[in-house]
Amino acid sequence: MTAKITILPDNISIRIKPNTPVKPALEKAGIAINYPCGGRGRCGKCRIQFGVSAPKPAPAEQTLLSARDIKKGYRLACCAQIERAATIIIPPEVRQAPEGRVLSTLGKQVEVDPLVRKVFLALQPASIQCQLSDSDLVHTALRAKGISLTDWTSSALQTLPAVLRQKNHSITATLAGTRCIAVEPGDTTKRLFGCAVDIGTTTVAAQLLDLNTGKELAATALLNPQSEHGFDVISRIQYAGEDPSHLKELQKKIVTCINRCIKALCQHARVKPEEIFHLVTAGNTTMTHLLLGVTPEFIGVSPYVPAFRDGHEFKPAEIGIRLHPEAIGYTLPNIGGFVGGDTVADMLVAAMAEGDALRCVIDIGTNGEVVIGNRQRLLATSAAAGPAFEGAQISHGMQAGPGAIDGWTCHPEVRFTTIGDAPAVGICGSGLVDIVAELLSAEVIDPSGRLQTAPHATSRVRSHGLARRIKRSSRGLQVLVASKTEGAKRNIYFTQNDVRQLQLAKGAIATAIELLLNEYGATSADIQTLYLAGAFGNYIRKDHAQRIALIPKLPLDRIQVIGDAALEGAKFVLLNTHYRETAERIARQTEFVELAGRPDFQDTFAANMSFP
Amino acid sequence: MTAKITILPDNISIRIKPNTPVKPALEKAGIAINYPCGGRGRCGKCRIQFGVSAPKPAPAEQTLLSARDIKKGYRLACCAQIERAATIIIPPEVRQAPEGRVLSTLGKQVEVDPLVRKVFLALQPASIQCQLSDSDLVHTALRAKGISLTDWTSSALQTLPAVLRQKNHSITATLAGTRCIAVEPGDTTKRLFGCAVDIGTTTVAAQLLDLNTGKELAATALLNPQSEHGFDVISRIQYAGEDPSHLKELQKKIVTCINRCIKALCQHARVKPEEIFHLVTAGNTTMTHLLLGVTPEFIGVSPYVPAFRDGHEFKPAEIGIRLHPEAIGYTLPNIGGFVGGDTVADMLVAAMAEGDALRCVIDIGTNGEVVIGNRQRLLATSAAAGPAFEGAQISHGMQAGPGAIDGWTCHPEVRFTTIGDAPAVGICGSGLVDIVAELLSAEVIDPSGRLQTAPHATSRVRSHGLARRIKRSSRGLQVLVASKTEGAKRNIYFTQNDVRQLQLAKGAIATAIELLLNEYGATSADIQTLYLAGAFGNYIRKDHAQRIALIPKLPLDRIQVIGDAALEGAKFVLLNTHYRETAERIARQTEFVELAGRPDFQDTFAANMSFP
Repeated sequence: MTAKITILPDNISIRIKPNTPVKPALEKAGIAINYPCGGRGRCGKCRIQFGVSAPKPAPAEQTLLSARDIKKGYRLACCAQIERAATIIIPPEVRQAPEGRVLSTLGKQVEVDPLVRKVFLALQPASIQCQLSDSDLVHTALRAKGISLTDWTSSALQTLPAVLRQKNHSITATLAGTRCIAVEPGDTTKRLFGCAVDIGTTTVAAQLLDLNTGKELAATALLNPQSEHGFDVISRIQYAGEDPSHLKELQKKIVTCINRCIKALCQHARVKPEEIFHLVTAGNTTMTHLLLGVTPEFIGVSPYVPAFRDGHEFKPAEIGIRLHPEAIGYTLPNIGGFVGGDTVADMLVAAMAEGDALRCVIDIGTNGEVVIGNRQRLLATSAAAGPAFEGAQISHGMQAGPGAIDGWTCHPEVRFTTIGDAPAVGICGSGLVDIVAELLSAEVIDPSGRLQTAPHATSRVRSHGLARRIKRSSRGLQVLVASKTEGAKRNIYFTQNDVRQLQLAKGAIATAIELLLNEYGATSADIQTLYLAGAFGNYIRKDHAQRIALIPKLPLDRIQVIGDAALEGAKFVLLNTHYRETAERIARQTEFVELAGRPDFQDTFAANMSFP
Repeated sequence: MTAKITILPDNISIRIKPNTPVKPALEKAGIAINYPCGGRGRCGKCRIQFGVSAPKPAPAEQTLLSARDIKKGYRLACCAQIERAATIIIPPEVRQAPEGRVLSTLGKQVEVDPLVRKVFLALQPASIQCQLSDSDLVHTALRAKGISLTDWTSSALQTLPAVLRQKNHSITATLAGTRCIAVEPGDTTKRLFGCAVDIGTTTVAAQLLDLNTGKELAATALLNPQSEHGFDVISRIQYAGEDPSHLKELQKKIVTCINRCIKALCQHARVKPEEIFHLVTAGNTTMTHLLLGVTPEFIGVSPYVPAFRDGHEFKPAEIGIRLHPEAIGYTLPNIGGFVGGDTVADMLVAAMAEGDALRCVIDIGTNGEVVIGNRQRLLATSAAAGPAFEGAQISHGMQAGPGAIDGWTCHPEVRFTTIGDAPAVGICGSGLVDIVAELLSAEVIDPSGRLQTAPHATSRVRSHGLARRIKRSSRGLQVLVASKTEGAKRNIYFTQNDVRQLQLAKGAIATAIELLLNEYGATSADIQTLYLAGAFGNYIRKDHAQRIALIPKLPLDRIQVIGDAALEGAKFVLLNTHYRETAERIARQTEFVELAGRPDFQDTFAANMSFP
């Protein structure tokens, strides 16, 4: 007795014995998927879907999958058994990337084909009969591999004679496009690394990648030390414009920070900085200007123009970044003064310029950027959301970090979670959204954003036992969201002013979305997929983001969280030079929409300040 | 009464009054020619040829033109009058270059179209309605002129915002190909300069050129300070190979020398070094290696290979050459270890790769290089001629300079000329050739190269009154070529050893020519034009060079002197980027023939040591 199973979308059918586990069945069918935890039923990542005949869920599946997903037929490939004839759908994101490819957060395959590559050459030494110059030996051997070299860096030429004769004419040439940038004795092809950096206004995040396999070897993040001169880009722009030495100082600060990131990455992965040959950075327009030592001051005054927009290739060594001295640096192109390379990187990850479906990317960081469109037309704008979602300007706000309240509920009673399960010390972005959403549902906050005093509290408030948590202080009304007795380090309050800050921030984002949709001639219902980018997006509850009207009411399965997509987009460009062209193209193609100049801006903003 | 004159090869006919001077007649016909001395009958450069009806030569013509030329109908356009109907042939080398072109020594028109150019742009500032970035303003304005820019140097981007706003958005962009390397406020298009350098083993010669007009603004020459470490390339190669610090030292010496040349050129022409945006150098392979800091040591040991052969683009600032910090440097490509970019430059001037006529270039400097061929096939070799033709290793030898005997005759009596008409202090290359040629004709030197003692002197020697000049000293036999009583600073002798040195040198050159001809399957009679390059070639008497069998017996009008063609070839590349491609192509196309390895080398060399 065998049962037929069909695997989709590959449409492969095989016959198996009933009660065969999914894992060997897929292997038999030649379908490779990822088991990040080694198939031990711990990570819940190997989600597959049974079209019909879903087996009874195992305990691990009940823990790691939502009831809704289980109902839809989702199971874990490492746990499930195929009881009888079945159809199994393999989502793209669980598939193992074929050799030479990596998978993105969204399951997209990215071919590893970087700008910089290494080629090992066992050369035939020159002779009196064949007096080829050292560089001609290299040219000839490369030509035999179908590679034609056009030029050399001076330093590669300088090292060539000695390198060639060190290991019996066996060398490894490092090529950037058609230029030879370095030569090393022997075979060092396995040692080729690249670094992707997301230069955020607040946080600098970096990854070290193996440019042969695309594998991520290490990741790190540091605070952007420029924060000393203001938390937002406007303060940095002003500081840079005050004195030429300030521009130098800001450049030095970000360079030092990147060097620290590189050092940490290298130590962790046992890589030498000189083995890193390519650096790709994504940052907002101001951050990119500061990195390159170009004044951003005219971004800050009307007509708000940057010095440059295009992606820029540079020599990291020239600005003091310590990698291989001939490493190639590249900053992603900007769209406008306030929509930068980080947004372009997001757009790469969200494949915004592919297909006809209307997509929307919202990147909420220190600033907020919104893009909507498809391959026909792309519109972008920035929303002056301020740093509320990063915890700034919130009484007990803090950045996402140990002890930050990242989840909060008051139904049926007040409960909260903190990052790292540490004692609560403050509230981060996702916690804020939860608090406001829950307090709205509990009617402690009214649609205009006003906190209700206990005497005015509705029956709902009383039923939640919230009334006693509402207190009046010198700062006005406030809600005790976590107390010492509940395991917090201190009593943590949420104030009337905090609601107002959040209203300003979410109103700015919502306004940007609405006005871009107007400009495009679409409504929120037309959005096929909405991507939430930024560290904040990783932790936010989608339904709560909708409850506070930060994002439009869409079916939840049309909302995808793509995390630090700026870093991932930089990684795309680092791993595959084709994405560099795509980035340049979409940056040129995207229309920047200036909201402040529009007659409908004030009204829309005012309307978006309130809650539904 | 008018007379008809026809101008060839233009085939223009006009009618003039008899006895009209040539100059206004040519102007009437619309033919522009150069009068380097301003038409004052002093330089003898405005040579034209009467087909028939040549007028009686004026006194200036009799001084400045040879009797033979006068007989052939050559006259000076600034002196001659047209007596009656005539045909006038205008040689290419006297024609005035049309706008945007310069004329080479050989009368070739070189279009001024350099790699680096300046473009003035009066930009429309950005506005809220049209938020173009600073660099996009430049891109857009250039695109309107049909120029598409692909990238920027970081420093150009860094200066752009301030430059743009300094003179009301009027800027000058300096472009190297499709890359913007600098921006300056206002219109500086008139200030665009380039520098061509011939890096000789002994002498470094440099020219400053206006890259808008191609005009030579200044020229200078300095001794190569590397000479401290040996007069020939072999000594430099050895010194460089002894210790890495020696390579650095030699590089620093040549860089300092080039900087001194640039300083002198700039002072003379009132140009700032930062206004020089392009530098092109021609040098032999070793000189080029040393300039770029690449060890030449393997050129010196079997199998005698250089580190690189191709032309190399570099940043002069990186090696310490003081021009504009973003200026582009380019070293001409080499053919082999001992045939370098200077020879390739000669080949550009001699148009070796054009046409089917067999041509030969002989460049006699500290080393000797010979090239023969045509567009089908090109062969090159080096002849270890040694520095005898530069006066080295000759008892009273000296470089061409004030007081050097550059012409010598003993028929009917001893007479000599010196450079600058200064009292004689020594003998330079062309003087040596004259002395040997004359002493051969006078039978003081026999065909084997032996000096004849006075008792053995033939009647011819006696008739020349030379017998009393032949003396025996501790150095062996010697000839007094100039005495104090004849106006020399000291008694100047020519020794038996000097004849031997000259025999070795001329034998090496003649052998190279003969063996290349053999390899090509041609004889010397097949050579359509033989070009003599190098400072030495400027002063040599062609018939004397043939008398000593330095060069083959060809009709004298097939021999052309092209002076410092290495410098002129570098100038070609500087003025017109198309010549860079040509240089790369001919360097790759030219076969290097290693003479030392050939079985027929020793015999041919021995045979070429003697005199005809």
